[in-house]
Amino acid sequence: MAGAAPVFVMKEHFDLPAGFAAGTTQAGFKKEGRDDLGLIVSEKDAVCAGVFTTNVFKAAPVLVCQERLKSGKPVRGIVANSGQANACTGDEGLANCKRTLAMVGAALNLDPETLMPMSTGVIGDQLKMDKWEAAVPALVASLGRRDAEGFTRAFMTTDAFPKFASQDIALSGGTVRLTTMAKGAGMICPNMATMLCVVLTDAIVDPAKWQALFARCADKTFNRVSVDGDTSTNDTILALANGASGVAMTTPEDERVFEEALTDILHTTAHMLVKDGEGATKVMIIHVHGAATDRDAEQVARTVGHSQLVKTAIYGRDANWGRIVAAVGRSGVAMKPEDVSVQLCGVELFRNGQPLGGNFDAALEGPLQEENIPMDICIGNGSGSYTLEASDLSVGYVKLNSDYRS
Amino acid sequence: MAGAAPVFVMKEHFDLPAGFAAGTTQAGFKKEGRDDLGLIVSEKDAVCAGVFTTNVFKAAPVLVCQERLKSGKPVRGIVANSGQANACTGDEGLANCKRTLAMVGAALNLDPETLMPMSTGVIGDQLKMDKWEAAVPALVASLGRRDAEGFTRAFMTTDAFPKFASQDIALSGGTVRLTTMAKGAGMICPNMATMLCVVLTDAIVDPAKWQALFARCADKTFNRVSVDGDTSTNDTILALANGASGVAMTTPEDERVFEEALTDILHTTAHMLVKDGEGATKVMIIHVHGAATDRDAEQVARTVGHSQLVKTAIYGRDANWGRIVAAVGRSGVAMKPEDVSVQLCGVELFRNGQPLGGNFDAALEGPLQEENIPMDICIGNGSGSYTLEASDLSVGYVKLNSDYRS
Repeated sequence: MAGAAPVFVMKEHFDLPAGFAAGTTQAGFKKEGRDDLGLIVSEKDAVCAGVFTTNVFKAAPVLVCQERLKSGKPVRGIVANSGQANACTGDEGLANCKRTLAMVGAALNLDPETLMPMSTGVIGDQLKMDKWEAAVPALVASLGRRDAEGFTRAFMTTDAFPKFASQDIALSGGTVRLTTMAKGAGMICPNMATMLCVVLTDAIVDPAKWQALFARCADKTFNRVSVDGDTSTNDTILALANGASGVAMTTPEDERVFEEALTDILHTTAHMLVKDGEGATKVMIIHVHGAATDRDAEQVARTVGHSQLVKTAIYGRDANWGRIVAAVGRSGVAMKPEDVSVQLCGVELFRNGQPLGGNFDAALEGPLQEENIPMDICIGNGSGSYTLEASDLSVGYVKLNSDYRS
Repeated sequence: MAGAAPVFVMKEHFDLPAGFAAGTTQAGFKKEGRDDLGLIVSEKDAVCAGVFTTNVFKAAPVLVCQERLKSGKPVRGIVANSGQANACTGDEGLANCKRTLAMVGAALNLDPETLMPMSTGVIGDQLKMDKWEAAVPALVASLGRRDAEGFTRAFMTTDAFPKFASQDIALSGGTVRLTTMAKGAGMICPNMATMLCVVLTDAIVDPAKWQALFARCADKTFNRVSVDGDTSTNDTILALANGASGVAMTTPEDERVFEEALTDILHTTAHMLVKDGEGATKVMIIHVHGAATDRDAEQVARTVGHSQLVKTAIYGRDANWGRIVAAVGRSGVAMKPEDVSVQLCGVELFRNGQPLGGNFDAALEGPLQEENIPMDICIGNGSGSYTLEASDLSVGYVKLNSDYRS
């Protein structure tokens, strides 16, 4: 199955950045007849940055990614599967994960230690190694024949739509491309875990700065969305820069333009995750300001965004601002009631700890039909602020998350 | 409407402790033709203990209760209404609350400062003072003609059943009675807030010890239940001891027996609140142990008990233990994966960070049909432990909390 030197063809990039190729196949990890195994390969060594779940129970692929990033070796590819999370699988799961990379590495004639794993699916089940063995030849043979959408579909679980985006960025030395491919948001799926995201660019980046730059952009975007507050065991974002465009960031303006574009495309991708939260019908955009610190503002935003009562009120298109104020008040952040003001969809409902009069139901009837629901919450005179995007809580969410096995 | 000296009759106590009388009426705060205003009066001065919401936005009745408790004056009664929470109502709400107590005090010929208010209902609406004025005479006239169930029904919102309990306690000097009357759990209701509970006893208690004794028992019971994690603006428990039995706690054994009985009856009452959580079909009894501190154990228990994914899995009778482990791992408490073991309904599923083999679905199919779902979570070798009772998350919860106005 493997030839001499890397065997994959790079001629058809579709929308991927230069020097990257994608392949997928149907390994049979899932019941549906859908691709469930994907591969990304870079023709050159790529600089890799990674952002991972903070859950104590990190899945085997997360542990392997972290170990490989630590080694500082360049990265040549990503192997991603759905149907099996390989989380809470102990030592056997760790060994299985490395064996799958060894199989793919052998087929590609690449050092398996330059391959990064990603898995999503049922927690606690061991990988079906026989299916991996059988699927790898077809996976490798498909390389260069899939686009960003194809790869994204291979690691989707119950996502309603594939989440990917590409953008060209004009730098002083030429144009580079940036592509993101993502799935899920939080542990959104019936028995499935995980937010996974692959970011590719053909820009030449400074290996010493890439991780910090990427982590900064991810923190401003991916870490500010929530579907259900359940941080998965598998959350992984890998960002590969292979330099195949031949274009480097040579001026401070280039760096600024690139970072802004990266933040933008990550924000677009993260927003898609919330929009496609299980059963989600709306995205609450919760902006908290006037806090003593950004951390305080974040705590308030997360308390509101995770409140079942706020989430169900927004699902029900109910101008029930008391639930928002009550969530702010139980956030654990010190504040004075008289410093707190709340706007919903641009309508001020509560100012300096006092309710405002008026027919809110009529004023908000229209805005609450919209898909995006902005909330503006001021809790004092500090300079701390935070914006969280969170989905609502619908009957569909409960049905999806409770009906799977019963 | 008022006569000379307290006008109420004490002859029919039904199941209340000696020296307490209850009355209720239909003030029209709610649409349904149900009692929505209740009154408890003690014929003697009572020692009062109180436990209140920790929400920054404390409702007007909570602020008034706290102010009155601080004054150290004896308490003669409780005025409780449903239909209006009088929360987030600002200065006007505070003044209205005091006016309602003045009305009732005048009708009873009692100092209004000896009356404690409790309210539950929609947040943000001002009290309907005209309806209060009209209702007070009938309320006072009904005193002594209602039992614990009658009073409980007057402050119910969408509770499926009234929650009250009475118990006689044999002390060395005679028998005393303990009665609890409660509603709701967390902010469980459509636009309604609040857990409210009244505890009455005719025992003679030490005023200097009553608050601490009661707070200790409430912390072991009421503070360990959760429906949706949304701490309301109105949560209030008031415990009145009027000494009308003439029986005091004269020995350390009496104190032990009384405290145990109080803890038991509060636990029974708190359990009823979870069982009657909106749309709840099951009660998860989450026991966490082996933690460094009780506080750490509590944090793990609350993360599991508030996890939407755990709650929906239990609603779906799904032996999906990976969601429990994932919630434990994201709790923010420091732990080593290899120290963590999890049992669901007495079946060990995960030991020392490794999954156990076996057909869990078959073993758990029966136990997961039960109403009470025990979880045993060990996270290390420490002596910290905590038990939380939490309801599941059902389609019914979302429907109730989103359909109210839309």
